[in-house]
Amino acid sequence: MSGYGTAFSLLRAQAGDAWRDYTRHAFVEGLKDGTLPRAAFLHYLRQDYVFLIHFSRAWALAVVKAETHDEMLAAVATLNALVTDELKLHIGICEAAGLSQAEVFATKERPENLAYTRFVLEAGYSGDLLDLLAALAPCVMGYGEIGTRLAAETTSDSYADWIATYAGAEYQEACRAAGTLLDAALIHRLGADYASSPRWDRLCRTFRTATELEAGFWQMGLTP
Amino acid sequence: MSGYGTAFSLLRAQAGDAWRDYTRHAFVEGLKDGTLPRAAFLHYLRQDYVFLIHFSRAWALAVVKAETHDEMLAAVATLNALVTDELKLHIGICEAAGLSQAEVFATKERPENLAYTRFVLEAGYSGDLLDLLAALAPCVMGYGEIGTRLAAETTSDSYADWIATYAGAEYQEACRAAGTLLDAALIHRLGADYASSPRWDRLCRTFRTATELEAGFWQMGLTP
Amino acid sequence: MSGYGTAFSLLRAQAGDAWRDYTRHAFVEGLKDGTLPRAAFLHYLRQDYVFLIHFSRAWALAVVKAETHDEMLAAVATLNALVTDELKLHIGICEAAGLSQAEVFATKERPENLAYTRFVLEAGYSGDLLDLLAALAPCVMGYGEIGTRLAAETTSDSYADWIATYAGAEYQEACRAAGTLLDAALIHRLGADYASSPRWDRLCRTFRTATELEAGFWQMGLTP
Amino acid sequence: MSGYGTAFSLLRAQAGDAWRDYTRHAFVEGLKDGTLPRAAFLHYLRQDYVFLIHFSRAWALAVVKAETHDEMLAAVATLNALVTDELKLHIGICEAAGLSQAEVFATKERPENLAYTRFVLEAGYSGDLLDLLAALAPCVMGYGEIGTRLAAETTSDSYADWIATYAGAEYQEACRAAGTLLDAALIHRLGADYASSPRWDRLCRTFRTATELEAGFWQMGLTP
Repeated sequence: MSGYGTAFSLLRAQAGDAWRDYTRHAFVEGLKDGTLPRAAFLHYLRQDYVFLIHFSRAWALAVVKAETHDEMLAAVATLNALVTDELKLHIGICEAAGLSQAEVFATKERPENLAYTRFVLEAGYSGDLLDLLAALAPCVMGYGEIGTRLAAETTSDSYADWIATYAGAEYQEACRAAGTLLDAALIHRLGADYASSPRWDRLCRTFRTATELEAGFWQMGLTP
Repeated sequence: MSGYGTAFSLLRAQAGDAWRDYTRHAFVEGLKDGTLPRAAFLHYLRQDYVFLIHFSRAWALAVVKAETHDEMLAAVATLNALVTDELKLHIGICEAAGLSQAEVFATKERPENLAYTRFVLEAGYSGDLLDLLAALAPCVMGYGEIGTRLAAETTSDSYADWIATYAGAEYQEACRAAGTLLDAALIHRLGADYASSPRWDRLCRTFRTATELEAGFWQMGLTP
Repeated sequence: MSGYGTAFSLLRAQAGDAWRDYTRHAFVEGLKDGTLPRAAFLHYLRQDYVFLIHFSRAWALAVVKAETHDEMLAAVATLNALVTDELKLHIGICEAAGLSQAEVFATKERPENLAYTRFVLEAGYSGDLLDLLAALAPCVMGYGEIGTRLAAETTSDSYADWIATYAGAEYQEACRAAGTLLDAALIHRLGADYASSPRWDRLCRTFRTATELEAGFWQMGLTP
Repeated sequence: MSGYGTAFSLLRAQAGDAWRDYTRHAFVEGLKDGTLPRAAFLHYLRQDYVFLIHFSRAWALAVVKAETHDEMLAAVATLNALVTDELKLHIGICEAAGLSQAEVFATKERPENLAYTRFVLEAGYSGDLLDLLAALAPCVMGYGEIGTRLAAETTSDSYADWIATYAGAEYQEACRAAGTLLDAALIHRLGADYASSPRWDRLCRTFRTATELEAGFWQMGLTP
């Protein structure tokens, strides 16, 4: 249904309103219709750069926690996409938006940003690959879903580049790959009936908490 | 000067206004003069219970990261004080305040709470014992300092039990022990001139961030 | 059957010959009939002291990885038994055997010792509590089983103290507590039918590898 | 002097005989003059494949533990070289040597192999990037040094491919990059005078232990 795999669809469904609050946040709607203030967008971009550093570290942790060759290759591919492509792309977007690399690097991390990345990393350190992937999924797939919807619904050119990035073939493929990794990792550890395992509840809670922290990140974006 | 060791005094001094914002937060002043609303206090107690669970986990991580016999014994002693004494004491305080254990256990963790504990745990997982202790110190010693000051300045009986706990001999001894552990761990790894090591800057940043997250925790306490 | 819980019985059974090779190793039989050379025993005691330090760290990691209040309390209790009681007891046994504390502290860790403890710690860091407990169980329960058997079968007084320690009520209770923790942790995460979960295979492999490393530890004990 | 940076030269020098025992092990001399039995080489190749999986995980952990943008990029580059290039190359060498991929994947890890990789990973998990790099360096640079020497001294074509790989420009560049990362990471955390820091002793011990475990790995290679 979501196109990002079975487990993600289940996790997304159980997150209920939290998923809607995240993916249809006022910040997102402002990207769609162009009403998001420029200052908020630049502020968000800078925080998102710090976020991506820690998010890359979390994907590197997924490599450490991989138990199969395929899991390792999938996590390395995502890590590369983040560190080699997305971080550079981000610097480019920031510069196009008038932010020097020095300004970006000097960004002071906001608590809402810190809360999210440390939650993800700690979930990964304390648990296994499933706990980590459940914490990573809302960001990866949520941005994919937002990108796709905004590409279809946007009424403004103001944030067309941002929308094109996440609606684009490359990012969508990354979402599908993450979904495939998540499905396979669950089946590998808990069997095809993974949603009946007691562990599933905890993974659902982790996913929901990460989703709430994503909404908090957008909210932070509105207050430069 | 602080009575909690040399390194803590240095860390506290460099944190500047952040330390003041934390230890003289409106929540603290409300505990002192009894103007803190009961609902805020009960809300805080419940969140603090969740906090203590993760804080205990962080002290257990200090045992894992210990490199000497003395470090291990000191961390085990603190862990025991937290898990065996303070968590039980906390349940007692909650019950005296009219909160059942079931209510306490059912507490949904607030983002400000989550941010702080995950920051501490992640600092510990990603770094060595020094990184972890720098993240733990603001809570341990800050409460000691607040307790001592409030015991001297309080004008109300409303929160006398809470104040007595943190001003008490047992808690003050725990603060001194943590200060001794921090001083020794620094000297053991970086030498007596540890504050000249480049690592010191990072430890200062970690301490300051944890201090800011403590202020955020009080602020959260004001909004049940 | 084993008296140390259901999961342990299953893990022990699947380990097959590896379990026998560990629990009936020549070193063990030498403890039983008193033919173990004194030099081998003293060498073993010194290595075992280093082992206990890392084993205590691994139990502290179990506290970090606990997901319930009961899991946390059980892991803290074991950690205390190790750090507060067993390490001290060990120093006492060493001194009674003519080894000064300085000699014990100066012990150079042998590769077979290092292999085992790092395997346990890495399993714990990379996985969740189940992975860690599966790696810890062979040592805890294996010594309990060896102690009980040797108390019944011993034909010599040479190592009566050692045998009495592990056959004793206190140590046996610790084994039962570890078994209860393991059973509950499995059911909590994987349900009552945990042995049907794909994860079970990995836990069995971890248990078997740790069992083999225990046999390697005895073998190392024979070559001072 | 070594060409792999200042810190490595210091670490190598203090390791003394352990470094010589590793880099001039009988297995290495057998590669040089072609007297190494084919069965030993194939056995080594299979174990080395398992080793590389865990070694890649350890380099991924270096990404997690990176504190600067440059550290992150350097660790990601090494991880890619290992996972994308060296693991594939290894499968190729194994196939050329008559080992199917299935045989390689089915390899049972030997204790000497396990000891080394778990030691490295645990050092990384428990410490910071320096502890991890000190444990990784003997393998990375030792193979570079062995490759260079054997390319100059070899008297046989039997293991020319293996020698050419580690003497080759690509691998030598990887060694220099690792040396640059190590030097910079030390200066970043401990200052230019890092060898005067108490931490240096522990890093030296970690390096020496890893060197001893490398010698143990060669020894294991001789006993298929």
